[in-house]
Amino acid sequence: MKNAQNSNLIAALGTSKRVHNFGAGPAVLPLPVLLKAQEELLDYQGSGMSIMEMSHRSREFADLMAEIDANLRNLLAVPSEYKILLQQGGASMQFAMVPMNLRLPGESADYIVNGAWGKAAIKDAAKLGSTRTVATTEDTNFDRLPSLASADLDPKAAYLHFTSNETIHGLEFFAEPKPPNGVPLVCDMSSNILSRPIAVAKYSLIYAGAQKNAGPAGVTIVILQEDLLDRVPDDLPVMLNYKTQAAAGSMHNTPPCFAIYILGLVLRWLIDLGGLAEIGRLNERKSGLIYRAIDQSGGFYRGHAQPDSRSRMNVPFRLTTEALEKQFLDEAKGENLVGLKGHRSVGGLRASLYNALPHESVQALVDFMKEFQRRNG
Amino acid sequence: MKNAQNSNLIAALGTSKRVHNFGAGPAVLPLPVLLKAQEELLDYQGSGMSIMEMSHRSREFADLMAEIDANLRNLLAVPSEYKILLQQGGASMQFAMVPMNLRLPGESADYIVNGAWGKAAIKDAAKLGSTRTVATTEDTNFDRLPSLASADLDPKAAYLHFTSNETIHGLEFFAEPKPPNGVPLVCDMSSNILSRPIAVAKYSLIYAGAQKNAGPAGVTIVILQEDLLDRVPDDLPVMLNYKTQAAAGSMHNTPPCFAIYILGLVLRWLIDLGGLAEIGRLNERKSGLIYRAIDQSGGFYRGHAQPDSRSRMNVPFRLTTEALEKQFLDEAKGENLVGLKGHRSVGGLRASLYNALPHESVQALVDFMKEFQRRNG
Repeated sequence: MKNAQNSNLIAALGTSKRVHNFGAGPAVLPLPVLLKAQEELLDYQGSGMSIMEMSHRSREFADLMAEIDANLRNLLAVPSEYKILLQQGGASMQFAMVPMNLRLPGESADYIVNGAWGKAAIKDAAKLGSTRTVATTEDTNFDRLPSLASADLDPKAAYLHFTSNETIHGLEFFAEPKPPNGVPLVCDMSSNILSRPIAVAKYSLIYAGAQKNAGPAGVTIVILQEDLLDRVPDDLPVMLNYKTQAAAGSMHNTPPCFAIYILGLVLRWLIDLGGLAEIGRLNERKSGLIYRAIDQSGGFYRGHAQPDSRSRMNVPFRLTTEALEKQFLDEAKGENLVGLKGHRSVGGLRASLYNALPHESVQALVDFMKEFQRRNG
Repeated sequence: MKNAQNSNLIAALGTSKRVHNFGAGPAVLPLPVLLKAQEELLDYQGSGMSIMEMSHRSREFADLMAEIDANLRNLLAVPSEYKILLQQGGASMQFAMVPMNLRLPGESADYIVNGAWGKAAIKDAAKLGSTRTVATTEDTNFDRLPSLASADLDPKAAYLHFTSNETIHGLEFFAEPKPPNGVPLVCDMSSNILSRPIAVAKYSLIYAGAQKNAGPAGVTIVILQEDLLDRVPDDLPVMLNYKTQAAAGSMHNTPPCFAIYILGLVLRWLIDLGGLAEIGRLNERKSGLIYRAIDQSGGFYRGHAQPDSRSRMNVPFRLTTEALEKQFLDEAKGENLVGLKGHRSVGGLRASLYNALPHESVQALVDFMKEFQRRNG
């Protein structure tokens, strides 16, 4: 009774003003997740304390970690021979941990570089050892996915790395690159994990900062084939060692408890909503709406990505002049449409359409785009 | 008006049940901090979004980072030639980053080991290069601080490392070790930072996981002399490189925004309370209360640490039998006194008395201790 009463009270407070948040990350979270977090912020499950104040060795927190593991396995259909880790440091820390853990002395690693994040990943890996760029479209400012048909893949590579979605350039892979036999496929899935079903078995290691589709900044999901742990060097520092982290259930030291808790709430929300098939359908519908608006604008709006490489998560687009782009941003803000400024390396505008962004927000943006074109086209 | 109304409503919800939380970390947070976080969880400063949903490149978040830097400098009297970083991975990540950044090839580092955390720090550093334990009391299960008078300190050491407070064994340094001329003093201050004034100028580098006195788990404070950055090797991965992190204002990638936000609220609370001199006085009073209860129990309660080495933050103590200890824990829980189980390496009980633990909680524990002794002594 008390809880129901609290929920109603807090819901009345919480929904007072919410904007349409198209930010590229940290990004919009599901409203029910925020309401639940608000409701139990001072008293987690009757414990008399916040989840932030609770021992990570407590029964409550152990239950939460187990639930998250089970829900990630369920949602992504993770095979049993994979371990799921929750790490700190974001995808950028994985840029270093992947080569430190998986590339043995003398080995080289292959990278497909289809945007800014792929570039950052190979840059760190190159500091620590040998790398090769096997496919890239940097020469056209990453306006399309690279062709993999002619890529010269190393059959002895420590792994083949790619970025499944590039937030800045708005490119997304819908089929996995196929590495040579025995070469592990490694993927930075930060910006499209949990946005649709994937075949985890095709990957040896997937990593993803949570702050796009999975939760707040501060926690990173790593899903890896357990037998990869056999090659982890023993002399790595504990916090950088997948084997230590796996053995300790991601709790060698105190994990980022609150970020993990929000991740847990997001996973529950996704399951309630119908899982990845359903969210995939919704995401396709949302991105379809905005790409149609671009394509039907007669060139008033121009997408950065070529149609066959388009991301469902991030839609970078330009107007005909920078002055018009600035006007668009300003007026959009007046309609509570925020987070639409493009990254400086592409310019213009960018709409990020992660899982938690409601369809109504995309509809509001598309309506505004049409109205703005009518007035300024 | 709306905000004041919200505050009242939420305060009525939030304070419904709170326990006395003696947990060793994650630990109790100030109630006003939690109430504020709850109030603005869905709408940070009128932005129409949660701080968790906001770009770390936004004006609001930049202002928050600047405020935290200023408030840490103010509270700790940090000299201007020091940089303050906010990192991920906890103190355990610093166990690796310190030697990676500060110990050049061929150099060795000296460690004072006065408990479990000092042991963990040197263990990771030893994986990566040369170390020496220059003082320890491991032979008496860390029941006292080691004597430094006879320590054989390396005048050419890359640095001298110590742990200012050991949470498990309950030992705290109240005077800094003095390294040989020119040897940087490095300190893991995770469990007593911000608990009283310190002389930052005596240190070259201080690091501290936030989850004791400063905030929730997921953010780590690093305070370092700027000229130390000159010795950072260029080939370190970006996330492990103090120079990169300092140059990027701790935002090379997305920082753990929510944990940082709570840290910011804790710092404001500390300033409102009167700063470190005042909190130091309160902490001395709280720990005095419980140590007196132990000392006046005629041996019914026995502290682990020798009196001249006692921590003001963590008070591990034993009863005469394990059965009695279990009974104590069970009955204490019935009185809403929680988080009192000692670490397995010391056994018995432990009361952690961090900044946010109210005096009333310590008084409630001491009253219970006396009553328990009366019934069972």
